[in-house]
Amino acid sequence: MSVQTLLLDFSIDPARLGDESGQKSVFGQLETVLKEYIPSLILAADIKLDGGSLKLMTGKKGTSVSVRLFDRGLVTVNIEYYKEDNEEPLISFKKSKLLESSVRHELQTERLKLLPTIKRGYKFDVYLTSSDERLLEYDIDNVLFDEQSPFQRVQIVHSKTLGNMLVLDDLQNISEADLIYTETLMQRGKENYEGKEIVILGGGDGALLYELLKENPKFVWMLEIDELVMNACNKHLKSICGDVLERRKGTNYEIIVEDCMLTVNKFIKDKKKVDYIFGDLTDIPISDTACGELWEFMITILESAFKILKPDGKFMTHGNGATSPESLELYEQELAKLTPPVKFGKSKAFVPSFLEDWIFYQIAFEKPDNGDA
Amino acid sequence: MSVQTLLLDFSIDPARLGDESGQKSVFGQLETVLKEYIPSLILAADIKLDGGSLKLMTGKKGTSVSVRLFDRGLVTVNIEYYKEDNEEPLISFKKSKLLESSVRHELQTERLKLLPTIKRGYKFDVYLTSSDERLLEYDIDNVLFDEQSPFQRVQIVHSKTLGNMLVLDDLQNISEADLIYTETLMQRGKENYEGKEIVILGGGDGALLYELLKENPKFVWMLEIDELVMNACNKHLKSICGDVLERRKGTNYEIIVEDCMLTVNKFIKDKKKVDYIFGDLTDIPISDTACGELWEFMITILESAFKILKPDGKFMTHGNGATSPESLELYEQELAKLTPPVKFGKSKAFVPSFLEDWIFYQIAFEKPDNGDA
Repeated sequence: MSVQTLLLDFSIDPARLGDESGQKSVFGQLETVLKEYIPSLILAADIKLDGGSLKLMTGKKGTSVSVRLFDRGLVTVNIEYYKEDNEEPLISFKKSKLLESSVRHELQTERLKLLPTIKRGYKFDVYLTSSDERLLEYDIDNVLFDEQSPFQRVQIVHSKTLGNMLVLDDLQNISEADLIYTETLMQRGKENYEGKEIVILGGGDGALLYELLKENPKFVWMLEIDELVMNACNKHLKSICGDVLERRKGTNYEIIVEDCMLTVNKFIKDKKKVDYIFGDLTDIPISDTACGELWEFMITILESAFKILKPDGKFMTHGNGATSPESLELYEQELAKLTPPVKFGKSKAFVPSFLEDWIFYQIAFEKPDNGDA
Repeated sequence: MSVQTLLLDFSIDPARLGDESGQKSVFGQLETVLKEYIPSLILAADIKLDGGSLKLMTGKKGTSVSVRLFDRGLVTVNIEYYKEDNEEPLISFKKSKLLESSVRHELQTERLKLLPTIKRGYKFDVYLTSSDERLLEYDIDNVLFDEQSPFQRVQIVHSKTLGNMLVLDDLQNISEADLIYTETLMQRGKENYEGKEIVILGGGDGALLYELLKENPKFVWMLEIDELVMNACNKHLKSICGDVLERRKGTNYEIIVEDCMLTVNKFIKDKKKVDYIFGDLTDIPISDTACGELWEFMITILESAFKILKPDGKFMTHGNGATSPESLELYEQELAKLTPPVKFGKSKAFVPSFLEDWIFYQIAFEKPDNGDA
């Protein structure tokens, strides 16, 4: 089942909507067109509002149509009805295009827009958002996994374009089409991991560990808190994580399932230092100021991580969408506060499952001899 | 100016909406929450509908809120209000997230979804669609060109992620981030254009011509009907077309501005044949059957094109989105009907400005000696 919402809007000369009789005439024309597409349409309410009016109509099978006429020359039409999955839509795609062109023609609109029908309460949620809160409809056609862990909602969905995709708390995380994400994060081809010791903070999807192991590191510790994410990815994202989540440890790697700070603090106590640390936890929060729980969490991790990094080591992490420069700037300001001081490089890659450019950071001590300070 | 439409929907146990008193109680809880976010909210209409009910409320500054309660356990809430560009939104992003969490908490919803606010009638249309009619909100922040030619509406918009982008009749065409499109169409690195004669059917954005000229062809004829597209791209898409649209002809190329069939027919009459033909006109239509004006146009062009192709020549063209296999299949059925018979290869590339995978065809005579038949 789902509710189908059709959103149409158009602009006309404001003079045509200037008074009540104008609004009545425009509405009359619109009503005539709508009646051709929606059976048994009758006016159920007519309400005067600040800056215009609202007419409410109802039709066959509980269809409701609300028409708002704004004095300033804008008209919005919202059509809403209930549909069982096996039912044909009341207004098919083809019919909606005809409706669009009828309204354009009959009302002589200056501008008109019909959005693709929005499906609400459908068994698959196909709407995700970009880092800058844009609405993106994915071609998701199945939900393979959907459970709540103590930390987050863990879903694996299937997209026709992207293959299987991990979605955490309604945020697209990684899909089978995202090798570029992992390769940009690790700067494959630019960094040499052979014989190196590496810590991954987070990384529960296993993709980073899987790719790093191909480069013959000395040892990789992956510190992930959420067992459920790993179980879901091990089952449904094998193509990006191989068997690393299944095996959990090998001759040169180990996945430690607990709060990553426990191992980091143990390393600090033991004066153990590594060549690379990957921050593969949460993204840089999108906010106006570097305040709040998420920022504090990230800054704490950052400060601790540099305490277990060798003087010539590197901290590699993902930032956020390239369209959120303000948040990236806040992150860079936090980096500037670290002691000993650090320097950083940035890389950008278009990540298929995000449908946007993403920024990745490579951070190192400004003076390699300061690392032991 | 714009109309802001907030769409929220949630699922609850259908038993809670089973009768009028249940619906009243759920609505009462919802109303209490909404009143915290929208000042002066009052009930303006209460309508019984097939399968549920519809309550209409109005609030400050002409805000309207329609709440539909569906017996089957679904509730949709549509909030709509007018906003001048310099006004703060009545419900900011932050506030909308608070509203979302209040509704989830107070109504103990099983599932809840709030879409990013939809902006209607705004000076930039940020909503485009994928080939399979999915809704995609682009980060368009400027319109640089918007004119109607005798053939189509020609727009150049600016996207934060993609740079400048050509939009024809509301379809994203090519952007400054789409070199992969041109390179996949021409199969750069696989095909050798040096010393070859080439015809481009269409190609008004100039990108294909610009890239082909880098490969030292003997001569390229570009046959484009729409002067306005070329003027717009020459001005706003220089980074993808260089100066080819400005100069219109050079020692080894010429742009002929007219119906491409005129030159094709002239070539047929003169028995002139070329090494490569690019079909860079309209996409394969999305439809159930290979009928209608667009299909006829495409088939006519295809048939004529093969008459001016050398026996070992190739016809290169873009197909459509990879999520529309039915239309691609129809196209391939048309290819199978051609005489002399042809064979084809396919390539796929994710095109940034389309936000989806696109299919490209490379078509050749099945038996090179048949070409002169």
